[in-house]
Amino acid sequence: MSDPASPQPDLYPVTERNRVRRAHERGSYAHADVHAVLDATPVCHVGYVIDGAPYVTPTLHWRVGNRVYWHGSAASRFLRAAEGTRVCLTCTLMDGYVMARSAFSHSVNYRSAMAFGTARLLEGGEAVAGALRDMVEDFFPGRWDTLRPMTAQELKATAVLWMDIEEASAKTRSGPPGDAAEAEVPVWAGVLPMRTVLDAPQGAPELPPGIDLPPGLAALVASGRLR
Amino acid sequence: MSDPASPQPDLYPVTERNRVRRAHERGSYAHADVHAVLDATPVCHVGYVIDGAPYVTPTLHWRVGNRVYWHGSAASRFLRAAEGTRVCLTCTLMDGYVMARSAFSHSVNYRSAMAFGTARLLEGGEAVAGALRDMVEDFFPGRWDTLRPMTAQELKATAVLWMDIEEASAKTRSGPPGDAAEAEVPVWAGVLPMRTVLDAPQGAPELPPGIDLPPGLAALVASGRLR
Repeated sequence: MSDPASPQPDLYPVTERNRVRRAHERGSYAHADVHAVLDATPVCHVGYVIDGAPYVTPTLHWRVGNRVYWHGSAASRFLRAAEGTRVCLTCTLMDGYVMARSAFSHSVNYRSAMAFGTARLLEGGEAVAGALRDMVEDFFPGRWDTLRPMTAQELKATAVLWMDIEEASAKTRSGPPGDAAEAEVPVWAGVLPMRTVLDAPQGAPELPPGIDLPPGLAALVASGRLR
Repeated sequence: MSDPASPQPDLYPVTERNRVRRAHERGSYAHADVHAVLDATPVCHVGYVIDGAPYVTPTLHWRVGNRVYWHGSAASRFLRAAEGTRVCLTCTLMDGYVMARSAFSHSVNYRSAMAFGTARLLEGGEAVAGALRDMVEDFFPGRWDTLRPMTAQELKATAVLWMDIEEASAKTRSGPPGDAAEAEVPVWAGVLPMRTVLDAPQGAPELPPGIDLPPGLAALVASGRLR
């Protein structure tokens, strides 16, 4: 979809690393398409290489422009080992099972994004505190200022990593099965839609009476979005 | 939870690779716990190392005993490059946002499993056909025999990879926030439960009249499970 010879500001460059090869008509290098998947998923899977072997860990992520952040314990071996190394951050939303007339034409509807970059440890207490505020506000707008403030010890125990997206692609499939030409095969074909939802909030057992669910969280639950 | 000095048949060995270090009370090496997460998730994220760099790709997986399978195009660079290499296969289910009184005590409820092994390409048309049958039957019991049979060309275009799980761990969190001791902070705390569901099936536009949704698929949709 992009011509590597003439890079465009709203497209990620296409390289051997991120070029979509299989079913490439489903791929996109547009910033908007990649960011839309990152922003719709609460959790990503980050791939690290440690001593030559792969590790894939699930984690929450948030994005500011072209920069993606994630966090963890300051004592985590993954986060310490990741500093300065190449990582691959992948987000996936499953949208349904695609049921066809042949096993081969079965598929899934999905939205996914793979982003490549170099992991960096965020340095400085103020920068880390600011990033964690961004994280909370990204998931739950308005919540940070209602919380008990972070302590110095909590800040010290928390590591934030970031990477600038250097290469990325999004890949999606949607719609009915692609084997309409085989409609004479007498088997049900179609889509079993899949979706991830937030259910009714459950207050903590010790929550004092009179503290209601904030409107922002109620709106999030009602929105059908996950963040 | 396991003593590496005295391995037990129902526990994966604990090594430097899979030992749960952060919040280790949430970890388990029990086959049953790892398999339960693998079996509950339709999609996994497989981490490969190619030319020293990490790649994380989402894919459907299925399990037979201690062996995990996934598949793709026979022409895929990932699948070809993966043969004989170490991979990390991670599954994650998000069960909710855990909203606490401090940013630090916020968390997520989740079930995840990381499994390590060496990827192997399944050889032989009959073996591949059998594995694909296992896959379809794992997701949609009873469906394989109702489908138009696979052609030799389709079989040739499909690659199946497998790995025996050598090391693995499961990690879960559930329940309310852990900061009940801070209940005097006047902010809502609790859980926003999250869950992935199958919605009402959508028949393909060209589906002939009289072909109803098979009872097996109707039962899957009604079950609350994803596979």
